[in-house]
Amino acid sequence: MGQVITLLSDFGLRDSYVSVMKGVIAQINPALSMIDITHQIPPQDIGSGRFALMTTVPYFPLGTVHVAVVDPGVGSKRRAVAIAVGSQLEEPLGFLVGPDNGIFSGVLDQCPAYAAVELTNTQFWRTDEPSSTFHGRDIFAPVSAHLASGVSLAELGDAIAIDGLVQFSLPAYFETENTIHGCIQAIDHFGNLITNIPAASLSAPWSVTIGMTSILGVLTYSDRPVGELISLIGSHGWLEIAITNGSAQSFLNLKIGDPVEVKLDKI
Amino acid sequence: MGQVITLLSDFGLRDSYVSVMKGVIAQINPALSMIDITHQIPPQDIGSGRFALMTTVPYFPLGTVHVAVVDPGVGSKRRAVAIAVGSQLEEPLGFLVGPDNGIFSGVLDQCPAYAAVELTNTQFWRTDEPSSTFHGRDIFAPVSAHLASGVSLAELGDAIAIDGLVQFSLPAYFETENTIHGCIQAIDHFGNLITNIPAASLSAPWSVTIGMTSILGVLTYSDRPVGELISLIGSHGWLEIAITNGSAQSFLNLKIGDPVEVKLDKI
Amino acid sequence: MGQVITLLSDFGLRDSYVSVMKGVIAQINPALSMIDITHQIPPQDIGSGRFALMTTVPYFPLGTVHVAVVDPGVGSKRRAVAIAVGSQLEEPLGFLVGPDNGIFSGVLDQCPAYAAVELTNTQFWRTDEPSSTFHGRDIFAPVSAHLASGVSLAELGDAIAIDGLVQFSLPAYFETENTIHGCIQAIDHFGNLITNIPAASLSAPWSVTIGMTSILGVLTYSDRPVGELISLIGSHGWLEIAITNGSAQSFLNLKIGDPVEVKLDKI
Repeated sequence: MGQVITLLSDFGLRDSYVSVMKGVIAQINPALSMIDITHQIPPQDIGSGRFALMTTVPYFPLGTVHVAVVDPGVGSKRRAVAIAVGSQLEEPLGFLVGPDNGIFSGVLDQCPAYAAVELTNTQFWRTDEPSSTFHGRDIFAPVSAHLASGVSLAELGDAIAIDGLVQFSLPAYFETENTIHGCIQAIDHFGNLITNIPAASLSAPWSVTIGMTSILGVLTYSDRPVGELISLIGSHGWLEIAITNGSAQSFLNLKIGDPVEVKLDKI
Repeated sequence: MGQVITLLSDFGLRDSYVSVMKGVIAQINPALSMIDITHQIPPQDIGSGRFALMTTVPYFPLGTVHVAVVDPGVGSKRRAVAIAVGSQLEEPLGFLVGPDNGIFSGVLDQCPAYAAVELTNTQFWRTDEPSSTFHGRDIFAPVSAHLASGVSLAELGDAIAIDGLVQFSLPAYFETENTIHGCIQAIDHFGNLITNIPAASLSAPWSVTIGMTSILGVLTYSDRPVGELISLIGSHGWLEIAITNGSAQSFLNLKIGDPVEVKLDKI
Repeated sequence: MGQVITLLSDFGLRDSYVSVMKGVIAQINPALSMIDITHQIPPQDIGSGRFALMTTVPYFPLGTVHVAVVDPGVGSKRRAVAIAVGSQLEEPLGFLVGPDNGIFSGVLDQCPAYAAVELTNTQFWRTDEPSSTFHGRDIFAPVSAHLASGVSLAELGDAIAIDGLVQFSLPAYFETENTIHGCIQAIDHFGNLITNIPAASLSAPWSVTIGMTSILGVLTYSDRPVGELISLIGSHGWLEIAITNGSAQSFLNLKIGDPVEVKLDKI
């Protein structure tokens, strides 16, 4: 009772795809709690799915099952997988279920996996002749419902090597003298630009340089007037560039992957 | 416990209408599970609501109550109805609650009804003086909550003839020699064009002709290069036209109702 | 069991912010039911949040906890508050949790508060060093989960004066002879223009004047042909301006705050 399944996809909320997955889950176990992470990942954008999952999984109860379906390779030879993360000895942090295409690599960077299987046991699928276009309905949703209802990871299929899981590659940040070189890894609904530079690397007062623009590092939005560009540690724990009560994205017109330089004001 | 109500409407997610319906349901029985099908049906578009319902209802647990509020005739003489579909002897497949305007006719084509009532018993409404513009709140939500909580269909109002329910008319497909003539019946969030031609009628290799364009029939997205127009059996069981990792709708600029011709390559 | 928490924000549904709040709530008490009011409040638009809350809270079960996070002042000195509304002697109508910035003033106009506290007891926060940008995750979500799980309002922090809560000011309507002077207080997804003139003040047949346009008062949409401008009592209990099966907003191009005059046809 109260066991949680989260759902993430690029299905949008206009069509019935998401509710079909929920119906399949409820058919297997109507007592499961289903919580949407988001279904507005841009179509086939594994990188945005990776970021949304990575920033959400740590806040959920131990043992939560996270189903993620951003799946441009559906119907091809890409593997379908389930992964256990966290501690094997105590209750696991959670389980990840979806295509093996890198969407889980952000979570796995932060919360190491201790076991993974390829989903080969069709007994836990909705049908042993799954649609070639909608594994969310026929494989991932039913497998997740069974996993959340007590079926063990090992029953779902053959064990696979954790270091063989597909990685989503994001450029790493690096430091030269008093400068950190990073990039934009995500852009949120408010137009905040989220870099890949973690708070821990900002060991001194800083400013951000983008082209000709220099942006002051501050502690919170209200430290500067409405409408001014600022950089601050966002709630995700990375350096963000924002405009108080405005959209930094609209103002700077940057995109995911664009480089960002941070000057550290070390004494 | 675990009894499910689904909700579908054209209310969108910006306003409070959907949550008001959920509040009314929770007031009657807070133990019910509410699952959204979609609330982004285009305003007053009964045909899109019909398609979303038809493609979702079969995946839900037996006995689920489906409330659908796409209701351009609210406040007029159109009937408010509840319909039982599936098997009367065993547990019914489910119940449909909403306006009698054709929105349920897709479900009824696939899952025959065995009983229907007009919602005349105001005892199960939120008020016997319902708003003339929001029957979702005042009639459909409370009736659904009572139905899902054990009230029988017969208690909700007067029995009506199943064959008197309003039908939503969609042109039928038909076959001439080696050609099937159909139409686009829905367009999804990915830009996939879903025809009204069922998989079962495709008894041979096929290709689709639209204007001057000929589109190859394939088994799955990954059978052809990214960016190429293909036709395949979609997860709903109909012939679809798609572009792998792209939008067939943006490319072909078709709309619901537009004709589609399929050439069967019979020997 | 079945205890309800509603969530309202300007976070949108694209990012993971909303699901992070739900994860935090589920970590504290996975048996709570979470229902979204909306997360599509325009960024920082306290007035739209006020209207959505005001029109929803009365429909929820007694004792529901409503969390609202439209919070342009996050990280500044604005207070974080919890408010009890309804009856202190019987079960309260509900609880409001969020920033003290006027977002609750619509609810409070209709359902008087009987107690309020500033959220100062960090024991019920997720961390005693909350993010300066995401109090939804670190303060409001956990406080709401504890409140919905039986923690008393008094334990959450220091009592504060109810009449000291920040008010959101909306121009009042007023009457001169046979004319009511009001304004647009909200615009919904259908393009219906919702005024601040309550049904009770319309004691006679009426018409609405906006610029050179005169709009007939009717009882329901179907009283006039499709496409015609009408004014009617909306489901929220205020005078609305609508076009049957169309968008009055697109036609008249009005915005929130724009004045509306109503002529009463008194004998």
